Amino acid sequence: MDILNIVKIGGKVVDDEGGLKRFLKDFAGGTSPKILVHGGGKLVSDLCVKLEIPVRMTDGRRITDEASLDVAVMVYAGLVNKKIVAHLQGMSVNALGLSGADLDIIPATKRNHPEIDYGMVGDIKSNDINRYFIRRLLEEDIVPVFSAITHDNSGQLLNTNADTVASVMASALARDFRVHLTYCFEKPGVLSDAGDEDSWLESLSASEFEKLKREGTISEGMIPKLDNAFDALNGGASRVVLKHFNNLLNETGTELLS
Amino acid sequence: MDILNIVKIGGKVVDDEGGLKRFLKDFAGGTSPKILVHGGGKLVSDLCVKLEIPVRMTDGRRITDEASLDVAVMVYAGLVNKKIVAHLQGMSVNALGLSGADLDIIPATKRNHPEIDYGMVGDIKSNDINRYFIRRLLEEDIVPVFSAITHDNSGQLLNTNADTVASVMASALARDFRVHLTYCFEKPGVLSDAGDEDSWLESLSASEFEKLKREGTISEGMIPKLDNAFDALNGGASRVVLKHFNNLLNETGTELLS
Repeated sequence: MDILNIVKIGGKVVDDEGGLKRFLKDFAGGTSPKILVHGGGKLVSDLCVKLEIPVRMTDGRRITDEASLDVAVMVYAGLVNKKIVAHLQGMSVNALGLSGADLDIIPATKRNHPEIDYGMVGDIKSNDINRYFIRRLLEEDIVPVFSAITHDNSGQLLNTNADTVASVMASALARDFRVHLTYCFEKPGVLSDAGDEDSWLESLSASEFEKLKREGTISEGMIPKLDNAFDALNGGASRVVLKHFNNLLNETGTELLS
Repeated sequence: MDILNIVKIGGKVVDDEGGLKRFLKDFAGGTSPKILVHGGGKLVSDLCVKLEIPVRMTDGRRITDEASLDVAVMVYAGLVNKKIVAHLQGMSVNALGLSGADLDIIPATKRNHPEIDYGMVGDIKSNDINRYFIRRLLEEDIVPVFSAITHDNSGQLLNTNADTVASVMASALARDFRVHLTYCFEKPGVLSDAGDEDSWLESLSASEFEKLKREGTISEGMIPKLDNAFDALNGGASRVVLKHFNNLLNETGTELLS
């Protein structure tokens, strides 16, 4: 099977025009076939503030009401996605920006929780990913660029976590490719001391992850990120690495071990 | 050659959620292959006001500076495009939302005027349209949904008139299909008396258009719209009709004659 590189970038690099261009140059130079999945950074929060849309949180998660969903669609599927596509086209990469609604590629289900209303949030499963069209695009040397906007197949757009989109996509495509999944973020890897950037681990096993979680060394946003990353490894991805967005082409970062 | 239906919808129907859904139901029921091109309505102006981005006009045209380009990309390529795609997917139409940057489908050139700075506006030519990928998409029963955001192939997004995108697309694809181009708007057709909605013409020739322009019967926004529509007819489209967006599947409206 061919190797497929799936790379996820998050907010910090998206917010920084210069950093984004440097990252995209590295991404353009990497081997194909490849897929990019992006988050949206703090543009959505900034725009919600400017438009006076109140931010509602539950358990540290933003509740996506209809007004903030509209902002998420504008920023993720519109501004960020098309800027990335235009930059990649300028680097001779034949990028195609996609939301989950386009070609019905990422069908989702509105989250249904007995107590908490998460709002317009979409949960996704690897079995539902439309692998046929993704394979067809990759066969044409097209580089899909995914925003994390999904849909319920009844006309309703939904907001999904971009780390989850990358993870589920990796599991789905592991049936067709040897998938290398890279989560790029603002740290050199998983840190064994949250205050020390030099403390990044070369590898992290599932049992070490559990231990570091219990000790409180790994906490907050790193927990769902690593849950997504381990899900991909357990779902069939051949290689899952977390690294700094400046190091895409370097052999650094934390590789997950099952 | 097969018939290809290209339908353009403008602001008034996009602004009206109920009207948009009714229109999309008609569009979904129309014969394939087909392409939808959409404008953005007054959402862009409304959002520019809320974000306190000053609107600058020259000769009745909005000047697209970088801040208002960002808003246009968010609204056209993001919110409006993805809402339409999600609605069509909900009607079992395999829609794919595209800007001109995606797959490099609509390469553009930033308008260069000796006296007037139009800002981030892209001019396009039918020879530059990437017909290969449009044909491949149509062969897969995909329905492309185009926003009028284009790019200069050096990483810069640009704003293009949606009527022009539909016209240039029709001319380009006239080499591969018998193109039926329909401009849907808020009037039943071209009116011979601007104050009387019942005065719509069944047909309009180029010479009659010149006469009605001279007399002032056709004025303002209808002139560039009809210029675009006649360009498509002269460029090879088999049929060009202007009609109300509620009448897509009815045999009404104004058909252009060369």
